[in-house]
Amino acid sequence: MIEQPKPSALSEQVQHMMEWLASYGRDEGGGVTRLLYDPAWCSAQQALASKMEEIGLTARYDDVGNLFGRMDGRDPQAKVVLTGSHVDTVIGGGKYDGAYGIIAALIAAEHLLTQYGPPLKPIEVVSLCEEEGSRFPLTYWGSGNITGTKERAAVAAVRDHHGVPFEEAMREAGFGLGQHPQPLRSDLDCFIELHIEQGQVLEREGQSIGVVSHIVGQRRYEITVYGESNHAGTTPMRWRHDAMFTAAEMIAALMHRAKGDPDGLVATVGRMEVKPNVGNVIAREVTFSLDVRHSSDEKIGNFCDEAFREFEVIAAEHGTSIVYRKWMDEASVGMDLKLQQAASEVLAREGISYRTMTSGAGHDSQVFGTFCPTALLFVPSRGGISHSPAEFTEKEDLERGVKLLIDLLYRLAY
Amino acid sequence: MIEQPKPSALSEQVQHMMEWLASYGRDEGGGVTRLLYDPAWCSAQQALASKMEEIGLTARYDDVGNLFGRMDGRDPQAKVVLTGSHVDTVIGGGKYDGAYGIIAALIAAEHLLTQYGPPLKPIEVVSLCEEEGSRFPLTYWGSGNITGTKERAAVAAVRDHHGVPFEEAMREAGFGLGQHPQPLRSDLDCFIELHIEQGQVLEREGQSIGVVSHIVGQRRYEITVYGESNHAGTTPMRWRHDAMFTAAEMIAALMHRAKGDPDGLVATVGRMEVKPNVGNVIAREVTFSLDVRHSSDEKIGNFCDEAFREFEVIAAEHGTSIVYRKWMDEASVGMDLKLQQAASEVLAREGISYRTMTSGAGHDSQVFGTFCPTALLFVPSRGGISHSPAEFTEKEDLERGVKLLIDLLYRLAY
Repeated sequence: MIEQPKPSALSEQVQHMMEWLASYGRDEGGGVTRLLYDPAWCSAQQALASKMEEIGLTARYDDVGNLFGRMDGRDPQAKVVLTGSHVDTVIGGGKYDGAYGIIAALIAAEHLLTQYGPPLKPIEVVSLCEEEGSRFPLTYWGSGNITGTKERAAVAAVRDHHGVPFEEAMREAGFGLGQHPQPLRSDLDCFIELHIEQGQVLEREGQSIGVVSHIVGQRRYEITVYGESNHAGTTPMRWRHDAMFTAAEMIAALMHRAKGDPDGLVATVGRMEVKPNVGNVIAREVTFSLDVRHSSDEKIGNFCDEAFREFEVIAAEHGTSIVYRKWMDEASVGMDLKLQQAASEVLAREGISYRTMTSGAGHDSQVFGTFCPTALLFVPSRGGISHSPAEFTEKEDLERGVKLLIDLLYRLAY
Repeated sequence: MIEQPKPSALSEQVQHMMEWLASYGRDEGGGVTRLLYDPAWCSAQQALASKMEEIGLTARYDDVGNLFGRMDGRDPQAKVVLTGSHVDTVIGGGKYDGAYGIIAALIAAEHLLTQYGPPLKPIEVVSLCEEEGSRFPLTYWGSGNITGTKERAAVAAVRDHHGVPFEEAMREAGFGLGQHPQPLRSDLDCFIELHIEQGQVLEREGQSIGVVSHIVGQRRYEITVYGESNHAGTTPMRWRHDAMFTAAEMIAALMHRAKGDPDGLVATVGRMEVKPNVGNVIAREVTFSLDVRHSSDEKIGNFCDEAFREFEVIAAEHGTSIVYRKWMDEASVGMDLKLQQAASEVLAREGISYRTMTSGAGHDSQVFGTFCPTALLFVPSRGGISHSPAEFTEKEDLERGVKLLIDLLYRLAY
């Protein structure tokens, strides 16, 4: 069994460092707001770079702003064991989402270096520049550049909602100028991400750690029902082509279908826009979102096909019509089986309760997952709450996650 | 049989005068926008006042801006036969709603005066200042002041959506200063309103005139479903308290209930607001409008009671809660039976097709209806369209309406 830090000291250190990182971007609502390339983001990355140097890692950026803290390996041929998460947040987010994976990696690296000296394989702690898509309409800018799925050309026309061009924001933060190495990596051995669950499964089941088998595939649609506006008082029910009535029937039918699925498929209609959206006018147009997720892409496809066949029947009954716009179709990504196995062994040995589970949320691990062996590990989120100042994970759970990471990195790199 | 104007001349006159009135407030979208006390409204009332004088009526305003054109009666004791409609429009409205009732009254009055001289009872043509509620959040300001259901005190705190106080707008238009007589009337014999149907019943059934028996009662609610926001990916279906799913089931159930009603009750959900209204977040709050109308107030009450009992069951199944806010509860108003009878006799005699019907829309006639004997008469609306630049009534139908009004005024006042 490897040497672990003293529980009380570790618990204190994790909490202290979580607060420390949250101080960069603390907003008026009591949350944390660090948006890609904004001043809070810049100061957080600078503070993390200093911290890396302080604990004996060599800090460097890549040219899009990902920050790495490297511990060289004794084997000059060995590829890099990479661990971390994203430093950006949603607007008014919490202090755990993303940040926890970085802090845990820093503490684990410091402990291993202090206790065991340089590893066999190099270990790098990464603070990924962007995952949330909160400032610019793109996501996974950090992991996407490292793995080659995102390129500079893709952001040429992208602006934030104040109209600031992506390129300009990047240059003002000191990136995209060729002063740092290009982000694409070909030297990664594996990627390990520790993250809060952002769901209630672990909490409700009383488990401490979730070992993720798949990050679910997801499809997102914007569905518009076209009916006919008419006067609410003078149009008999039988003559109506009511887009709202049609949409309500569709949503109710769809949600019942999802609720009846035995394999945990989830479907959500979270957004609706009605035109003209006036109480005494029959709606002529209703647009609603549809978000469907499952670990089997085939299952998602079948679900949508069947639901849409039912939609056609409903629309025909109302004399309305439908237009579907599919704007996201992300395949399910499996996490590395050997890494899942290694994590499970550590957890079993330490007597820490855990379960294998899917991740219903997207993570940088899904980008790394098709590029190199990847592990995604969850700690519980109280009430399943995330993207909110109310985000919270118990200190004991934070501590267990760090211990697991220490153990896993030791197995992989020493 | 009384003398009627030559058909071709009458048809031309009606169309000409409809265009003339529509020229006051013609907007960029090709519609008509005359909002209470705005410049277009002021110029329309001034033009109508001149027209009244031109055709031999005595024009005067009351202190809230209703405009009357009076033809004195030979009997000094006789009460006034009042006819007309409202001069204000919705934003981007058509040229028929309200305006047609004023133009028809002017033409009828001119014809009667020319052909038969002064009547026994005084006839007044009225251009009511406000009905639509398009500028300020209040309706029936014109008829309400004449009948005493609206008072100055009620608008003390009312502002338009630019923040202009009602009182200020009124004074700037030259009203509310005590320069004109107070609006409340105690000398009305009856009120006759000619109006476009704003529905498709007459057109679909090939009838020329609708004789209104009741203006329907209506209840309006704002209904809010409170659920729980959660992550669309990480929250299993069985743990959700989805305000959108709940609302969709409620709306579908309610609309089916209305559709199955054998007595022509109409129910409409035209507006919906979702919070947070984000595609990948389960809705925590959905507010939707409910508009229910029928000529029987009891029937409306029973319909709402039964629908809301069903809502409670649906909410309980979802673990969500509901708050109802009833903000309108207007009783059904019957039109005067003798006036309906008189109109029907004229129509039968002239061989003009007609039907008795309810009005699903509100009209100034519902305010007059509980104050003095009132008749509301409809001409067809093409496609049932109103409150739109596409509002249209065939010239033959406009002409038939004016002829009916001439005949009816003759019967009532000569």
